[in-house]
Amino acid sequence: MTNTQTFPLSYLHDFIVRVLTKLDIPEQDAHQAAEILTLSDLRGIDSHGIARLRTYVGLLNAGRINPHPEIKIVRQTASTATVDGDNGLGLVVGPFANEVAMQKAEEVGSGWVSVRNSNHYGIAGYYPLQALKRDLIGMSMTNASRIVTPLWGAQGMLGTNPIAIAFPGLHEPPIVIDMATSVVAFGKVEIQKRKNEPIPEGWAIDKSGHGTHSPDEMIDHGALLPLGTKKETGGHKGYCLASMVDILSCVLSGANWGPFAPPTAIDLPRSKEQVGKGLGHFFGAWQIEGFIDPAAFKKQIDHWIQVFRSTKPAPGTDGPIIPGDPERKQEAIRRKEGIPLLLPVVDDLRTVAQTVGVSF
Amino acid sequence: MTNTQTFPLSYLHDFIVRVLTKLDIPEQDAHQAAEILTLSDLRGIDSHGIARLRTYVGLLNAGRINPHPEIKIVRQTASTATVDGDNGLGLVVGPFANEVAMQKAEEVGSGWVSVRNSNHYGIAGYYPLQALKRDLIGMSMTNASRIVTPLWGAQGMLGTNPIAIAFPGLHEPPIVIDMATSVVAFGKVEIQKRKNEPIPEGWAIDKSGHGTHSPDEMIDHGALLPLGTKKETGGHKGYCLASMVDILSCVLSGANWGPFAPPTAIDLPRSKEQVGKGLGHFFGAWQIEGFIDPAAFKKQIDHWIQVFRSTKPAPGTDGPIIPGDPERKQEAIRRKEGIPLLLPVVDDLRTVAQTVGVSF
Repeated sequence: MTNTQTFPLSYLHDFIVRVLTKLDIPEQDAHQAAEILTLSDLRGIDSHGIARLRTYVGLLNAGRINPHPEIKIVRQTASTATVDGDNGLGLVVGPFANEVAMQKAEEVGSGWVSVRNSNHYGIAGYYPLQALKRDLIGMSMTNASRIVTPLWGAQGMLGTNPIAIAFPGLHEPPIVIDMATSVVAFGKVEIQKRKNEPIPEGWAIDKSGHGTHSPDEMIDHGALLPLGTKKETGGHKGYCLASMVDILSCVLSGANWGPFAPPTAIDLPRSKEQVGKGLGHFFGAWQIEGFIDPAAFKKQIDHWIQVFRSTKPAPGTDGPIIPGDPERKQEAIRRKEGIPLLLPVVDDLRTVAQTVGVSF
Repeated sequence: MTNTQTFPLSYLHDFIVRVLTKLDIPEQDAHQAAEILTLSDLRGIDSHGIARLRTYVGLLNAGRINPHPEIKIVRQTASTATVDGDNGLGLVVGPFANEVAMQKAEEVGSGWVSVRNSNHYGIAGYYPLQALKRDLIGMSMTNASRIVTPLWGAQGMLGTNPIAIAFPGLHEPPIVIDMATSVVAFGKVEIQKRKNEPIPEGWAIDKSGHGTHSPDEMIDHGALLPLGTKKETGGHKGYCLASMVDILSCVLSGANWGPFAPPTAIDLPRSKEQVGKGLGHFFGAWQIEGFIDPAAFKKQIDHWIQVFRSTKPAPGTDGPIIPGDPERKQEAIRRKEGIPLLLPVVDDLRTVAQTVGVSF
């Protein structure tokens, strides 16, 4: 870890706010965006944290994101809504829509919001973590740039389309699920490339559709494989899950589904054909009390966690962990010690600071 | 296919009704059960169809399923409910709870029902197919006997815990997703055993936690692996999905979660410890109109299907198919030609007929 430089969390938060406000993002929105990005860094999901700031800045500078969106509910029932993000930052549109879902859950037991005309919304796990604070079970999904092939395909047609959901414990920490529906997130391929190491069997194909161990061949018009990899080991299931996320997030809201998703990096080409507006997300929340006494629920979750931790371990392992354990462990360390950023990321931030005209 | 005997659909339906009514199941409930079981056979999911009748009969004869349940809503909000199945047939409890979810969706935009004190509910896909008939997007999940290990575990702690969801097209057939969250369903291992063939890499472990190619070693206190198989290829994700299903179906309703799930076969031992009542399910439904004009939605689904069918094919394949294609193809054939049953299944049904005292 000598190729990193460590920063206090609050400094990075403040830097993001200064950059975004300089780019005409209202201060409250900039704080919201900084909260999501730094939470990602805190939890060790480095690919979705401040490392992405450069991309957001590029898109804002190019006029491809609206800094002053009028985010609106365009259709609703007591427990559902469609939100139009007016091409705002996903880091601002997402929390708005998640809030609508949580309010509806508090009012009528559950709330579901499909979102169109948005942009990259950060880590999927941020949203259910907000719901936890209100004794709700929260869920979030989003589409993303075309980079995952359907089973038996030879090109990226879907995003890594994550699903996140969280359940509160009583004395135990919450169970937090946040997973791409592809075998791995794209960030894992980038890490192998940076280390100049091959990628494992079953992650990706090259542009001709053949399996590849080369990060470069995946990146050059290849694609990631869906969770399950091949038919024999359930590759159709990862494709099914990514499709579900795509349809709930985009077809239901009127966003750009599948291969028409706008790229979240400025240097990637946009699809000429548009089938909707911007990126799409999907948020949900359930009142625990609508099903069961919340204290009883949390007590059972504690028991669940204890029972699963005591599973007989597979040979050569310490046994199963609980979803959310690795991120929680990182968060505990980084809250104390600060956020280690890779030097190329630090360089990027320096460039961002110069371009925008703030200090770093 | 010489080791099968083909029966008309209506004959099998009628046989199931005669068997169940003889076992004191009310006629309407028997018809409901027969509808689900024969739909499974029609769609080619032979493991969940009439082949299971023997098990249901065994459990009914042993007094382990209540033929006259008082199925009740025990808690509810406008858009959520918890149902107690009073230990009735899952094939009867499931449709009751799904109906509650669909009615709530029609009233307030969405409906969610967690179910306890139930039994095996047939194919997960049956329930969203009912929702399609009412222009709703339906979802269903269920727990099942402990047979799937968490990642890094060496014993079955979760069921194959399926997730099903369906989306209607306009001129195209619906997209129907119905998938176990394990690498494969247990039925696939049984098929390899019957054929006396090994199971592929990545499906299962033996009782010591080592990977195995032997169906017998998996069946003898081994376990299936979660979707994704190992850490490197996302085995933690299959574990996450199975956990989500388990918690929504069981912890939220007060059913037996994880390893405490009652076995659905009569010859398997029951857990001495109970943490709730019976098996658990989870049903959901959304009004499409609560998000978007249903005609516009269906038109986009048609477009989605056409675009995904035209994905560049992987070498040596015909390219991606649409979720639900294989089952639809089987249904078209079997509606015309009848249901082919394996001879051991036919023998089982003959035994059932003799035990119960009906003709076959």
